[in-house]
Amino acid sequence: MASPVEGIDQSNAPYVIVSSDTHAGLYVEDYRPYLEQSAHAEFDEWLTTRHQHRAMVEEMNGAYVEQWERDNEVGLKGAFDPEIRDKTLDADGVAGEVIFADGDSVTGMEAPPFGAGLQAGMITDPRLAWAGARAHNRWLEEFCATNPPRRAGVALVPITHGIDEAVKEIEVLAGKPGIKGIMIPTMWHDNPSYGHASYDPVWAACAEAGLVVHTHSGEADTDAYNDNMAQFMLEVAFWTHRPLWQLLLSGAFDRFPDLKYAPVECGSWWVGDLLFKTDVMFGGQNWKVKKMASRTKGLIQRLPSEYIGTNVFIGASAMSKVELRRRYVNGLDGLMWGTDYPHPEGTWPNTATRLSTDFQPIPVEETRLLLGLNAVRCYDLDIDALSAIAADIGPRPTDLHQDLELRTPPNAIREARFWFDDYGIEWKG
Amino acid sequence: MASPVEGIDQSNAPYVIVSSDTHAGLYVEDYRPYLEQSAHAEFDEWLTTRHQHRAMVEEMNGAYVEQWERDNEVGLKGAFDPEIRDKTLDADGVAGEVIFADGDSVTGMEAPPFGAGLQAGMITDPRLAWAGARAHNRWLEEFCATNPPRRAGVALVPITHGIDEAVKEIEVLAGKPGIKGIMIPTMWHDNPSYGHASYDPVWAACAEAGLVVHTHSGEADTDAYNDNMAQFMLEVAFWTHRPLWQLLLSGAFDRFPDLKYAPVECGSWWVGDLLFKTDVMFGGQNWKVKKMASRTKGLIQRLPSEYIGTNVFIGASAMSKVELRRRYVNGLDGLMWGTDYPHPEGTWPNTATRLSTDFQPIPVEETRLLLGLNAVRCYDLDIDALSAIAADIGPRPTDLHQDLELRTPPNAIREARFWFDDYGIEWKG
Repeated sequence: MASPVEGIDQSNAPYVIVSSDTHAGLYVEDYRPYLEQSAHAEFDEWLTTRHQHRAMVEEMNGAYVEQWERDNEVGLKGAFDPEIRDKTLDADGVAGEVIFADGDSVTGMEAPPFGAGLQAGMITDPRLAWAGARAHNRWLEEFCATNPPRRAGVALVPITHGIDEAVKEIEVLAGKPGIKGIMIPTMWHDNPSYGHASYDPVWAACAEAGLVVHTHSGEADTDAYNDNMAQFMLEVAFWTHRPLWQLLLSGAFDRFPDLKYAPVECGSWWVGDLLFKTDVMFGGQNWKVKKMASRTKGLIQRLPSEYIGTNVFIGASAMSKVELRRRYVNGLDGLMWGTDYPHPEGTWPNTATRLSTDFQPIPVEETRLLLGLNAVRCYDLDIDALSAIAADIGPRPTDLHQDLELRTPPNAIREARFWFDDYGIEWKG
Repeated sequence: MASPVEGIDQSNAPYVIVSSDTHAGLYVEDYRPYLEQSAHAEFDEWLTTRHQHRAMVEEMNGAYVEQWERDNEVGLKGAFDPEIRDKTLDADGVAGEVIFADGDSVTGMEAPPFGAGLQAGMITDPRLAWAGARAHNRWLEEFCATNPPRRAGVALVPITHGIDEAVKEIEVLAGKPGIKGIMIPTMWHDNPSYGHASYDPVWAACAEAGLVVHTHSGEADTDAYNDNMAQFMLEVAFWTHRPLWQLLLSGAFDRFPDLKYAPVECGSWWVGDLLFKTDVMFGGQNWKVKKMASRTKGLIQRLPSEYIGTNVFIGASAMSKVELRRRYVNGLDGLMWGTDYPHPEGTWPNTATRLSTDFQPIPVEETRLLLGLNAVRCYDLDIDALSAIAADIGPRPTDLHQDLELRTPPNAIREARFWFDDYGIEWKG
């Protein structure tokens, strides 16, 4: 395996930034023309509940909602207005973007019909889940076409609401130039878990179509939290990246070598430790076998850490300082930075400041991977077109106060992945 | 807060080792005299299933079972024979022990009736859950009395099978000298989660009785694993320590300041990162508040990391090298080493070798905390009696090839807890 920074531009040229996590969506009412007629009656009912939800949020946290919406009045319209969106991306220094549903995470007023975006798993009627997903997908296709090299759309495919239906929808999506991936419900609820063989037709279709599969932060085991928001905040990452291990450990990436998966907006702080735990299961020489070992043999063909950067990418959004420090152990070739625009928990509208604060100690070659090139590779984006955009708007390494002479130590990843030494695992890097 | 190593003996005196994780239990049939008459018919049926389970394990993994049981024939009898147990502990250098149920983790033939130990949450009939738990508790009380300073028994209290019943059982256990804690089912299944106020009478009773509450590794969300053992191995730690956050984040340690809780045999590699995530929720100055912050205010009175070593202890069992390296970030005053005797995934019968391999780079004062003194404090054990036992059997620092001059750096914990700097949290250490 060559070093991931081999051949990467170390000059002061502008960064090609691809935000691996943005959101877009129509104002709820405006989805009507994209929604099949047969679901309009239910749509009207659902709109009522949306407005009630907004009223509840305003009641609870009105001052915050008002300030957020006033301070960012124009930029927030970029959730659905392509011209405003491009200007906002420009100002943020962002050339390309991977677009998820649900533009409004504060009051939920830009959700696809029936909550078919981040709440898809919670819909109980499959007919509505599919109607809502398709409405968003129709609009998303149009929206991505407003600036093709820049926008990589992630369509909605609620696989828990029917596998045959999912395969059909993936085959339709496969032909659309702006669509680069699908988002599946974060949780599988009462359905078989995502490691179950019954989902294989879905993974096969995505691998065939070159569509990256995603789960995105949003759902969690809410019933267990007794309205305690801290419980939600603690666990939401677990529920979002849980499908990664279902796919990886069930051998999905071996059966479908072209399959790619990315968990999004659940950070990356947990990656290294779970690679440690799983690598040791399959490669550890000191592991006490007991009755378990014989049952993990043959499940997968490589060590779990070897799937990072080939089949597994991490949509780490606005990485914290500690996540940046852990980039070697987590996988320099699999981490994708993102702004989460236009959500308030992301870096927008202060992306430039955030970049210049956080990336100062990081070599240029690594920064190029994290800020854009890993996403270009994951989604097979048009690097020439993106570079042309970045030439005008991308921040340069010196804007991030970086040292142009700094290089990646030759054994950085080997040394960070402590478990190879601790457990006598063979290093194939 | 004083440094946890302040005043700790730095000499070459033998270590007072307390294994925070051992198991004991009768051979299944032998529980009959301890089981109430009214459950004998069901007990006979259950015995049949146990023998079938053993046969299945032998079928799957016969060579391993045979070798393990042949190589350790005598020591394994220490699961129920106090004389053999003491000799085995002596040989391992272990002075004291915290005793959980289920002596046999290989074929399950030393489980309390109806699986009331590590599988208590999976019992569906509360009557049997309580009958099984009480049978084990009656026996455990006798067993601990065979060598009181040495044995700290953890009784079974299946709180998911009735809170009033649980409080009654805790009040009975409160008077028993050998009983130092209770084990609750690891998972709450369809019951309210452990952060729910309905469990407050249980926590109140434990705080009052000075009984440490435990969850122990064993259960997980098995239905989601599709018989994939790697999924189980990956997630079992999460399910075991999940109740910690339910208690901590719901303010149980504030309402019941004398309440102590320890998750056991789920390692400690996850501790630092979850303290990071939760400390930031409550103390971070840069945290984007959105609608969530107002809902975490007032939930707890200290930062989560400040409960480690006072209310929260970690039964980390046979800590891996990386867990030892992370002792500062995880909490030098809350980590408790353990052998898991007589289970094969632990250090027995090679404890001496393991200690001398792993603890070499660690200061003596810290080693004393990790190997014994934290457990002495957590369970209020008789340090004089344990020291007298250790004088004859405990390994000395030089047996662990340790440098007697090595000291804990003054700011070790402050520096390891990176989030205080990264997020501008006030350090009160």
